[in-house]
Amino acid sequence: MRTYLDCIPCFIRQALEAARLATSDTDLQAEIIRQALWLASQQDFDEPPPVMGQALHRLIRRLAGDTDPYREAKQRFNQAALTLYPELKRRVTCSPHPFETALRLSIAGNIIDLGVNADLKVSHMEAAVQQALKATLEEDQVAQLAERVQNAESICFVADNAGEIVFDRLLVEELPTERTTVVVRGAPVLNDATLEDARAVGLTEVVRVIDNGSDAPGTLLGDCCEEVRRLLARCDLVIAKGQGNYETLSQLGERVFLLLRVKCPVIAGEIGCPVGSLVVCQGREPAETGGA
Amino acid sequence: MRTYLDCIPCFIRQALEAARLATSDTDLQAEIIRQALWLASQQDFDEPPPVMGQALHRLIRRLAGDTDPYREAKQRFNQAALTLYPELKRRVTCSPHPFETALRLSIAGNIIDLGVNADLKVSHMEAAVQQALKATLEEDQVAQLAERVQNAESICFVADNAGEIVFDRLLVEELPTERTTVVVRGAPVLNDATLEDARAVGLTEVVRVIDNGSDAPGTLLGDCCEEVRRLLARCDLVIAKGQGNYETLSQLGERVFLLLRVKCPVIAGEIGCPVGSLVVCQGREPAETGGA
Repeated sequence: MRTYLDCIPCFIRQALEAARLATSDTDLQAEIIRQALWLASQQDFDEPPPVMGQALHRLIRRLAGDTDPYREAKQRFNQAALTLYPELKRRVTCSPHPFETALRLSIAGNIIDLGVNADLKVSHMEAAVQQALKATLEEDQVAQLAERVQNAESICFVADNAGEIVFDRLLVEELPTERTTVVVRGAPVLNDATLEDARAVGLTEVVRVIDNGSDAPGTLLGDCCEEVRRLLARCDLVIAKGQGNYETLSQLGERVFLLLRVKCPVIAGEIGCPVGSLVVCQGREPAETGGA
Repeated sequence: MRTYLDCIPCFIRQALEAARLATSDTDLQAEIIRQALWLASQQDFDEPPPVMGQALHRLIRRLAGDTDPYREAKQRFNQAALTLYPELKRRVTCSPHPFETALRLSIAGNIIDLGVNADLKVSHMEAAVQQALKATLEEDQVAQLAERVQNAESICFVADNAGEIVFDRLLVEELPTERTTVVVRGAPVLNDATLEDARAVGLTEVVRVIDNGSDAPGTLLGDCCEEVRRLLARCDLVIAKGQGNYETLSQLGERVFLLLRVKCPVIAGEIGCPVGSLVVCQGREPAETGGA
């Protein structure tokens, strides 16, 4: 998916929020915004939004001299989600439809996106859980996904954010874990989950987890390590979480299932549903455009 | 008032909205945003926000080849406000406190700010009127202003937006019009009122109206014509409407009364009141900072 013009003001807002997390020096914050504006002006808007996100967050980390401004926030959301885990696990176990319940909870966890809402409170997670358990889902997409999970020889689960991966763990535990690999980001960017987060929430104890070698807030194939590129090319089923992965993986076709909470009008317009919707949808091959 | 870092993402959003009004060519919109980002990166954030606004809107008009992208919107709001005028005038005339009622309605009209809310509908004006008639106002500031109006030998009323000037006309008609001059913008910028708008709503028939020679969305003294600079320097009382004039005139001291609807968190923080408040406040001399 290309970068829409509506993404640009949103990126500048995100850069300001990240700058404020990374440094309390207001002169440095101003310099960061100045350079972020310049950097944004130089980007190729035909690339997916995570290309601009990667460039901006690299700039902010470099100028602020902080390799991980979201470190504390990630730990906080991991811990808060872990305190919910036993009760959520019980809900899955007692559910007449454990797979669907786990799927709903995994999507609920996608609310933990500090790129869209830097003011997110832990209390919002519980409201998201309640909403997700009741929300309308595309039932035939859910059934399709359940069937593919049964039949897949290899499954790649592409995680999104810290905190959210606790909710993902519930869904991963309903997958054939011996045939599943979870992919996390290769280095800190925004509040996206890395190997450190996967270990902190115990995900590494239930499934194989590898990092993609990239610090993009999405999955830019050309920026991923060889192992992840090969895995994504060969596996039968990709389950990818969140907007950043939607923006970068939906063109891989129908063997990709995107699970997300729609958090902005641009994605809402792309998918064709209101902001706030819980979405399970399949990827599409990009249309032939002809020419070179 | 300086440009806060929070103003920057808001300006980029405003630039995008203006670009879309100015041209339907999406490639040109992208080029406008690209150049707007670059231009914003070059600005002096110590200057008040209308300096950046002036630069951005000049850029957009030049690149789009449209000298007045808001022309149609201004006419629409002028006409819509004029249809309300007879009923609003009746309310003022029948009010036990005509000055205060006219003051409230003038502030209600300040909702017509397409820089803050490009999606504003005509129906929002009527809701703003109802709110303004009931809202809490600083009563001693209103009384102070009424007293100064009585005693002033010369009054300068600095208008803000098209449409809004119909509401301002109600207040101007409660002033000693023979001692009052209304100042409008010197050239189109955003939906700010120019002489053309003042004529269209009949304001020129009830009071002397002059333009300030500037295309800034506020009153940058150094950018105004000699006549307006002299008027603002010498008059006993300045009544200035809206956020752009607040940002540029509040430092002229206590003979300036700012009338506005607070439409953003930055101004809310400066004034110390919630977004949505109706404000009547006096300017302050800037604090001595010492040094050169």
